[in-house]
Parts: sequence; structure tokens; C-alpha cells
Amino acid sequence: MHQTQIKTIGFIGLGAMGMGMASSLLRAGFTVSGYDIRSVARDSFAATGGDPAPSVAAVAAGADVLILMVLNSDQVEDVLFGDGAGALALRPDTPIILCSTVKPAYTISLAQRLAALDLHLLDAPVSGGTARAAEGKLSMMLSGPEPLRTRLLPVLAALTENLYVMGNAPGQGSTMKLVNQILAGIHIAAAAEAMAFGAKSGLDPEKVYEVICNSAGGSWMFQNRVPHILQDDYTPHSAIEIWVKDLDIILQAGKEARFPLPLSATAHQLYMMAAASGFGHLDDAAVVKVYEKLADFQVVPTNSDS
Amino acid sequence: MHQTQIKTIGFIGLGAMGMGMASSLLRAGFTVSGYDIRSVARDSFAATGGDPAPSVAAVAAGADVLILMVLNSDQVEDVLFGDGAGALALRPDTPIILCSTVKPAYTISLAQRLAALDLHLLDAPVSGGTARAAEGKLSMMLSGPEPLRTRLLPVLAALTENLYVMGNAPGQGSTMKLVNQILAGIHIAAAAEAMAFGAKSGLDPEKVYEVICNSAGGSWMFQNRVPHILQDDYTPHSAIEIWVKDLDIILQAGKEARFPLPLSATAHQLYMMAAASGFGHLDDAAVVKVYEKLADFQVVPTNSDS
Repeated sequence: MHQTQIKTIGFIGLGAMGMGMASSLLRAGFTVSGYDIRSVARDSFAATGGDPAPSVAAVAAGADVLILMVLNSDQVEDVLFGDGAGALALRPDTPIILCSTVKPAYTISLAQRLAALDLHLLDAPVSGGTARAAEGKLSMMLSGPEPLRTRLLPVLAALTENLYVMGNAPGQGSTMKLVNQILAGIHIAAAAEAMAFGAKSGLDPEKVYEVICNSAGGSWMFQNRVPHILQDDYTPHSAIEIWVKDLDIILQAGKEARFPLPLSATAHQLYMMAAASGFGHLDDAAVVKVYEKLADFQVVPTNSDS
Repeated sequence: MHQTQIKTIGFIGLGAMGMGMASSLLRAGFTVSGYDIRSVARDSFAATGGDPAPSVAAVAAGADVLILMVLNSDQVEDVLFGDGAGALALRPDTPIILCSTVKPAYTISLAQRLAALDLHLLDAPVSGGTARAAEGKLSMMLSGPEPLRTRLLPVLAALTENLYVMGNAPGQGSTMKLVNQILAGIHIAAAAEAMAFGAKSGLDPEKVYEVICNSAGGSWMFQNRVPHILQDDYTPHSAIEIWVKDLDIILQAGKEARFPLPLSATAHQLYMMAAASGFGHLDDAAVVKVYEKLADFQVVPTNSDS
């Protein structure tokens, strides 16, 4: 353990998740230098006590460790090797913690390219949503060499409540995240299908929710997301577009491995139907609106219609 | 309440679920006269203290209430109006508790036909599996006229831990059961898809199980069924064939209502693939074998192969 070695953390990607994570690191006593392409995010970050930097390179130059919480692998490429040129600005032997959800094959190739620059990649996707990010209570699905994991433990501990070590090789953490997303993505869409069928068939949606939460049909996502449907509140805690993206990553990984994923593919199409309907930026529970739109009804009639 | 009126319960269908339910009624002090088309089931029933009868009509003739726990609506028809002629043998004003999973439209039509014979139908499908059936701790999704529900409460209480009243009309209980089966059927297949993808991608299946049970991807079915995969034990607690049947009922109900159920349809096809592969009588967690067979691998390698 070399806790004293890590003082300044560079953080790239100050979105809803990243901002919460960066604030957890500040609370734990680290100096956090952060960058986001959006100036409004940099201003918010300054307001929470962080040090906003003018560029990726400026963040990288002073970082003892670099954390990436950007949207996808294209943005990782931009940050490290493209416009950001972050990889060249980092000191040799610096660890990079990649928290974005990306294809395992990408993580493996990235680790190899970074190793050639004497940089070390920790494959560290997270789960838990924005509230838990801000509380430092995420779940992290981690893989990478044991010495690197030990060295970064104080940083990881500040971000997480559950730290699952999947193995020593990059890609294993990302694979575990995809397994979780297969289930979570299917379960949200299944919750929508079941609630819509029940309501269309005349059942009281509140009663259906109560029964399912106590029955064999229950899931974490059903319990968490169906209240959004019942309250007709689609404020995006996690948006439809996240599933358009994550299930696409899953299906690409499946395609490359020649591994069939029929339920994931069907769920992906349901989120695509939601996005086609203009619901992409709504909360992911709005996948129920696909069923409502097709069958011209509402699971919970709004006041103006009832 | 007219508890004293119900002394003798007629019970048709002494399969794994029915036998457990009948034994719970015996334990609660009722006289239970039972019939199953298989003589071996009647012999087992006698061994548990029940009164096996030689025919449906013999059961019906002496019953204060008749409980049906047969496989499907065809068997209900046989028992009540076909070979069994049970409806004609029942005394007027006798209640019939239908616990089988059937189409809501069937339940509604059955209630009307029975009413013409001065017989009363309670729509009462159950959930929870054979162990809970034997413990008298099933969940029941109930609908029917309030006076009938009250009259039968002592019987229902002997069978259930959770009694969910969905409404006063036949069909509502059956619809609630279908909503639960939509979710449960999809979740088992999703658990198989996710576990298979994770294992094929190199993750330790035991570790995947641990992570998912503590993550947003969790479900009641994942937690309950994946241990069967990990232990390579497909003793049929609930068989693949149940899902071939139940998801077909769901898709038929959807078809008649012109309501799309794409995830249910995909899950149904996965159970059909399992049945086509000869796995129909295995535990429903064996849907994972579809992925194993197609991709020629095992989630948990058996000793002979490892």
C-alpha cells in the first residue's frame, strides 16, 4: 500500500455520475483536478470545491492517478490519444482508472497500448446511479493486476460501497458490467411489458406493483423503476439513451464472440422504439410508453384524460 | 363467515403442487376427498391421510367446496363438463376454487357457465412452488364476489401466506398470475442469457452470481434459479414445459387483446428451444442449456469435461 503517494486525482468527465464521484473524492481528502468538455460542468465542479482545469492535458500533467468517467470508448480515445492527448501528458507509471461502460475487447486493447507508454489501466466500471455516486457508495466491478489494485485501494474505497474483484486481467471488470447491464436492461423492459399488459387488462397498477414486489416475478429494477410509471414522473435518473448505448455494446460484444443474446436484442429494440418515439432523454422507465403509444392507452391515466 | 359450513373439501389434481396443497388442508383439520387421474397419485394421497376417491363425480358429490389444481383449461373442462362431469355432481350453491393458471377469458366464461348451474367460481391462481404449497404458504392472486371470498377464507388461509385480492370479478386473479408469469418467465431466461454470456466470456460463474445478487441486475428468479446452474442440478422443481405452457397462455391472451409482448415471445421461443433439445422435463433453469448447446460450452464444466 502506498496511500501517501496519491494526493492529486485527475478526473475527466463531470457528468451526473462523474460529478458525484469527484465530490466523493474531495470529501475523502484528495485534491481533485477535473475537466469536462462543457464549461457549465467545470463551473459546477468549482462550486463543489474542485479544481477545474482548462484542458485534459492540464489535468493529466499534475495527476497521480487519472479517472475516466466519459460516455463511451470514442470519448476515451479522444481524451487519451486524440484532442485531449492525455496519455502523453501523464507521468510514466501513472495509473488510469476507466469507469465508463465499454466493450471488454476495447479495455484489453487499451491496456496494451497504455502499457507501451508505461501507463497502467484498471478496468473499473461502476453501477448504482447518481445518488450513490455522490455518496461514495457505488458498486465497482474491478479487474487489473493485484499490485495496482492494492495501490489504488484508498481511491477506490472513497468511491464505493461494494468492490467486486473479477480478476487480474483487463476486460473482466467490463464483462461483469455487461452481464449486469444485460439483466438490468431486460428487467426494466420486462417491467414495462408486464405493467402495460396488466393495466391494459384492467388491473389496478398500484396493486400489481404491490403483488409483484412480494412475488417470484420481482426484480431490483421492477421495484426501483415502476414507481416512476405509477407517478408518471420520467425525470431521467438514467435515460432511455443509456440503454440504446449499453445494449448496443452488449450486442456488439456478443456479435464478435458469435454468442447469441436474443432477449438482450429484443430489449434493445424496445429502447430503440422509445428513442424513435422521442423518449430518448426521458427516464428509462419510459420504455412503457412504447406499449402505451402502440395500444393507445395509459397505464396510469393522467388527470386530463381520466 | 360460515366456517362451520365447510367440512369436506373436494380436491382434483394431486400433482406436485396439488398434493402439497391438499396436505396443508388436511393439517388445518379439513376432511379432504381427492382425485387424480393417476392411481399412483391417489395412493400417495391416501398415505398422507387423505381420502382418495374413485372418480371426479365421487369427490364432487360429497364436497362443500371443490378445488381444482389441474394442468390447464382442457383438464378443467374434462373435470367439470367432460368425462369427470363434476359440475353435475356438485350440490347447488357449491363454490369452486380454480387454482390452475389459465387464460382470464376462460375464467370469465367458466364463471358464467357455472353460475347457470348455481355454482360459484373463485378465480384463485397460486404462486410459490411445491415447497410452499406443502407448507400452506403459497401466494394467491384472488378475484371473485366478496361474499364468496369471505365464505372461503378459512380454506384460503390454510393454503396461503399471502392472499392478494385483485377485485370482485373472475379473470382479475388470472390476469395477475399472467403478469407475474411474464416477469418470472423472462427473468429465468434472462438469468440464463446473462450467466451464459459471462461464463463464455471467461468470468467465474460463482463470482457473477455473487455480484448480481447484490446489484441492480438482481431478481428473485436469478437468486433462486442460478444455483441450479452452478450445481449442475436440474431436478425439476418447476419444469421447462411449464413455461412452454404458461408463456403460450400469455401470448394467446395478448393476441386476443391485440397487445404486443415481444419479450414474452422471445422468452417463449427460448423455452421452446430447450424443449426441442429434449430438456422439457428438466428444471426451468435448464434454459441455459440452449446457450450451452448452441455455443458448445458449459457454464460450469463438469468433472468429466474439465
